[in-house]
This record gives sequence, C-alpha cells and structure tokens, in this order.
Amino acid sequence: MSKLTIKLLAKELGLAVSTVSKALRDSHEISAETKAKVLEFADKHNYVPNPYASSLRKQKSKTIAVVLPEVADSFFSLAINGIESVAREKGYHVLIYLTHESLEREEIILSDFNSGRVDGILISVSQQTSNGAHIKKAMAAGLPIVFFDRICEDVPAAKITTDDFESCYMATKHLVIKGCKKIAYLSISKNLSINQKREEGYRKALDDAGIKADEELIVECGNEEKEHYSTILTLLKAKDRPDGIIASVEKLVPPVYTCCNNLKLQIPSQVKVISFTNLATSPILNPPLSTITQPAFEMGSKAASLLFRGIEKPSFNLSTEKLVIASALQKRESTDF
Amino acid sequence: MSKLTIKLLAKELGLAVSTVSKALRDSHEISAETKAKVLEFADKHNYVPNPYASSLRKQKSKTIAVVLPEVADSFFSLAINGIESVAREKGYHVLIYLTHESLEREEIILSDFNSGRVDGILISVSQQTSNGAHIKKAMAAGLPIVFFDRICEDVPAAKITTDDFESCYMATKHLVIKGCKKIAYLSISKNLSINQKREEGYRKALDDAGIKADEELIVECGNEEKEHYSTILTLLKAKDRPDGIIASVEKLVPPVYTCCNNLKLQIPSQVKVISFTNLATSPILNPPLSTITQPAFEMGSKAASLLFRGIEKPSFNLSTEKLVIASALQKRESTDF
Repeated sequence: MSKLTIKLLAKELGLAVSTVSKALRDSHEISAETKAKVLEFADKHNYVPNPYASSLRKQKSKTIAVVLPEVADSFFSLAINGIESVAREKGYHVLIYLTHESLEREEIILSDFNSGRVDGILISVSQQTSNGAHIKKAMAAGLPIVFFDRICEDVPAAKITTDDFESCYMATKHLVIKGCKKIAYLSISKNLSINQKREEGYRKALDDAGIKADEELIVECGNEEKEHYSTILTLLKAKDRPDGIIASVEKLVPPVYTCCNNLKLQIPSQVKVISFTNLATSPILNPPLSTITQPAFEMGSKAASLLFRGIEKPSFNLSTEKLVIASALQKRESTDF
Repeated sequence: MSKLTIKLLAKELGLAVSTVSKALRDSHEISAETKAKVLEFADKHNYVPNPYASSLRKQKSKTIAVVLPEVADSFFSLAINGIESVAREKGYHVLIYLTHESLEREEIILSDFNSGRVDGILISVSQQTSNGAHIKKAMAAGLPIVFFDRICEDVPAAKITTDDFESCYMATKHLVIKGCKKIAYLSISKNLSINQKREEGYRKALDDAGIKADEELIVECGNEEKEHYSTILTLLKAKDRPDGIIASVEKLVPPVYTCCNNLKLQIPSQVKVISFTNLATSPILNPPLSTITQPAFEMGSKAASLLFRGIEKPSFNLSTEKLVIASALQKRESTDF
C-alpha cells in the first residue's frame, strides 16, 4: 500500500478531509461514533500525520536544539541526560548539534534555526565564541534561548551556570593549605567566560594567601591532544616547575597524569593535581583524582525547564533569568587528602 | 520587520514568486542580473527559506537520525564524531535520539520517523531490543537504515560491526596465557547480539584452552550502578572467586576497580582485568587498564557513508551491506603485561 495520507484516509472512509482531521484531533464537533471509526481505521493502517505539514499549520516543530562543543566530555553527556529528561516529559524532540569548538560552525547552525526548524535553543558556546552577534540574530527572529555552562555575557538571554569563580577559589585555597607555593592554572581557551571566572577565582585565592600570581604558570594548552601533552611536558620539565596543578577542563587530566608518569614526578608528593570534571573514573585513577564536580544533570534539566517556560508562554521574559548552581569540591589522594 | 517570506520578498522586488524562487535556486531560466538583484536583497534582509515548506516540496528533510542508548560512553561519543564528520560534508543535520536502553522509547522514536521527519536512520539498539519489528516497520515506510555496533540479526538492513567474537576470544586467550584459571565474563544484558558474540568468543577460547566454562562466572550485572557494584562485590567475595575478569562494557570498569580496592584484592596479582572500552583514562588508572579498543570513529563514519549512499541512490540495495572492522587488544598492567 502506498503511503496513507489524510486524503486517502478520508476517501476510504467516505468522509470529508476536514471531518477526518477534526476526528483525529478529538474535536467536540465530531460524534463519538465517527471518531471511533476514524481512529480504528487510522490505527489499523498505521496512519501517521506528516510532521512538516503539521508544523506549518501549528507553527511548532516540537523540537528543541541543543548546541554543544562536543559530547566526549562527562559534563556534556550528563547535561544532555538532564535536558532529555525534561524534554521527554514535554513530548519534545531534542536535536543535538556539535560545534566542535568552531565559531564558524556555530554560526552556520544558528542561522539555520532562524528558519523555524526548532522552537527553542539551549546553547553552551564554543571556545572561539567571544561575542554573540549570531545568537542575538536568532533571538531577534523570536527564538527563546537559554545558555548553560558556557555563556556569552553580552547576550541578554537566560543563563544557567555553576559557581566557577567560587569553586576555583576553593580548589586553589585547598592546594595552598596543602602547602603548594607554585600553582599552575591550565586551560584550553582564554576566550570562554567560564574560564575567565575560574582564572579570576584562582588569582583571588592566591592573592588572599599572599602569593603573587606568576603569569608563566597560567597556561593555555590549545585544542589538540598532542599540543596538550607537549605544553604540559614543557611546563613540568622547567627548573621552576609547579608543585600544584589546576586543570580547568577534563581532557587535560590524561596528559597531566601521563607527563608526571613519564617524568617520574610523584602525585601528590611532588605535584598536587585537581581538575574540573565529572569523570566516573576519577576515584580509580593512579592516584585517585581530586575534582571540582559540576551539577551537570541538574544544569541540563534546569536549563530545559526554563526554555519550556519561554516556549509555552511567549510573554515570559527569559532574558532576566539567571541561575547559579554550586559545584562540589571532592578531595582525593591527588591533592594529598 | 515581520518575518520575511518569499511572497513578501517577491512583492518588495516587484517580481513573481516563481521568479524569486528560481533565482534563489540559481535556475538557468533566470537572468544573471535578476539573480544578483534577488540575492542581494535576500541577503540584506537576512531572508532564510522555511525548511518545512522546502522539505515538503523536495520531500527531503536534509536530516539523518542517530538512535543510541546513551552518550555517556566513550564508544558512542566517538562514533557520533565519526558520523558528524561525514554528515557535515554532505550538508546534513544530525538528529541524536537517546533510548536510555528502553525498547519502549526506541519504538516511540522509530514510529515518529515513519512520518518523514528524517531521510535516514543510523541505529545502535537498546539492551531490551531482542527483535526488530519496529525497525522493519520504518524500513517498510521506505527509510534507509544502517545498524552500527549493536544490531538486530533478524532485520535485513546494512550492518557495521566490530569483530566481537574474535576480540573477546583474543582477550580470554590473553588471560589464559597469563595464568588465569577462573575467568569471569561480565555483561549488562544478555539480549544484545554483540554481547552474545563476545560471550561465544569467551566460551570458545576457554574450550580451546581445555577449561570448562563455569556458568557461575558468566554474570549479568543489570542496568543500575548500585546493582553493578553489589553484583561484582558478591562475585569477588565468594570463596571460589575469579582470578580474571572480562568486562564487556565500559561502565563496569569503575565498580570492578572499586570492589577490588574495597576487598584489598590486588590487580593484577590476584585478579587480572580487561575491558571493552575506548576510555581516554585507561592508561592512567590504578593499575593501567588492558582494553579491547573498538574502531568507534571509523564505525560511525563508515555507517554514515553507507547511509548516504542509500539516501542518494534509492536503487542501491543497502540490506546486503555488511562491514566488520577489527578491534585492537591493548595490553597494560591490569593483565600483568
């Protein structure tokens, strides 16, 4: 049988297309008997309405977009689970787009949304995104937008973040208390607002401890795996090497541990290490890794809930919504706990 | 300004809608001068065609769906990167759907696709999926489908897999050579075809080594984290505990290591451990973990390439396409390498 359209359905049943359409939408204008007849026939023949035609009528795609740098990171994969848990309840599809840390790719994705493909956007921006012109454009087209984790300060959209300044302050203070004098701060990009806040927390904690920040110890490791390894190796080989390391992103953990192993530097006796991460393997690393654990699932679910408020009630002013959810410091052997 | 439609565009330019439409599609029927005029105006006013209207005309959504159990697994996150790398070249969107290992959820997702929302499907089935009736239904609706990694044997669609039997045979043989006599095989679900093949490889390697398989050592650990831990703890506390463990899925690694730590069982001297995984932290675990590393990125990109052949050339018979890409055994300290 060829694909069953509503026209064919109406013809087979000997009814008007409008009658069948109303019956399928459970309209009060149609008798219970006719509804039963239509539904039974539609079900028997596996009739499925065309979502594009339906979207054009309703002006809703029943889809939200999640724009992310990547999924190979425990924070993002947990955040997606949080987003999905809410979208499922609302009967929405989740469209996941990856920017792979490219601003150009992010711009292409956002410009595509202007055309009505999705009803709202959850976004965590790429490393290269230092201004949000492309995001403002999507907002101007009437799309509700909620930032989570990585935000653009200059864009007046809802923002769900964690306490990046405070948690990095705590981590740095923890290393200072453990006796570190030369604490390195490692990032992959200085552009990101979350990185700037973490770095500020680090600087403030050093300052409060009476330690002068050493710019040589604030290191941007770049975006390639090989570069991470070589940059960290150079840092740890230096005569004046750090005695403490804060990794501001999870993917710097393997190269930090590998460099220490290869240089026979003992963690924690010679170098103490702490990282921002939600890695399930943190407690079984050699040695177990101290972490700043982010509320990833909760940030995802809260961001999605807020987005749905904006989608369901266009008069709701999303732009003033801001929520900060605290991260937790988890002390383990890598910082001599 | 209200949203710019092609009608408004035509009105503003004093041209017919069909002329503007053809100009935007770079038709040879339209003069270069008119094309330039239309494109300049459309660009200046940020005109974006409605993808749903456009999809209805072209009968293409320019979107492929990837249906996965989860993203919090190194195999799937790397496979997604492989899929995206191909889709991007083709100018397609990738719609990622998560089943969270639920057959019911998978059925709902698949039935939605029957309505033309996507042009093709890449799927790795849930743990609960022991037959593929819902997938056959989507195929019957004319949708090209490619399985990757977790397949349904009974569905005549293209299949990209790795050598699950051979790689688990190799892993088991490696443990036998290292002196293990009581090797446990841990899974999360016996339903999955990949699990069945891995288990067969394990059984064959034991048989070839003259070791009788002990059914008590073939353990299904369930789907919940807590259950994993308690099941493995019981196994390792037993008087007749295993001296070797094969974890058939990555998420069993943290509970295996944690149980050994808590019971003060030394890896590898008292228990040797190997797991199927692509975890970046495998080399820095305590001790470094021997792994069966799957060709995740390549499986994703090959599956996507095959799907696009099916989408672009409907006469191409996808159902007979089968590709097996080998996994690699990576020996590390956890198996006393």
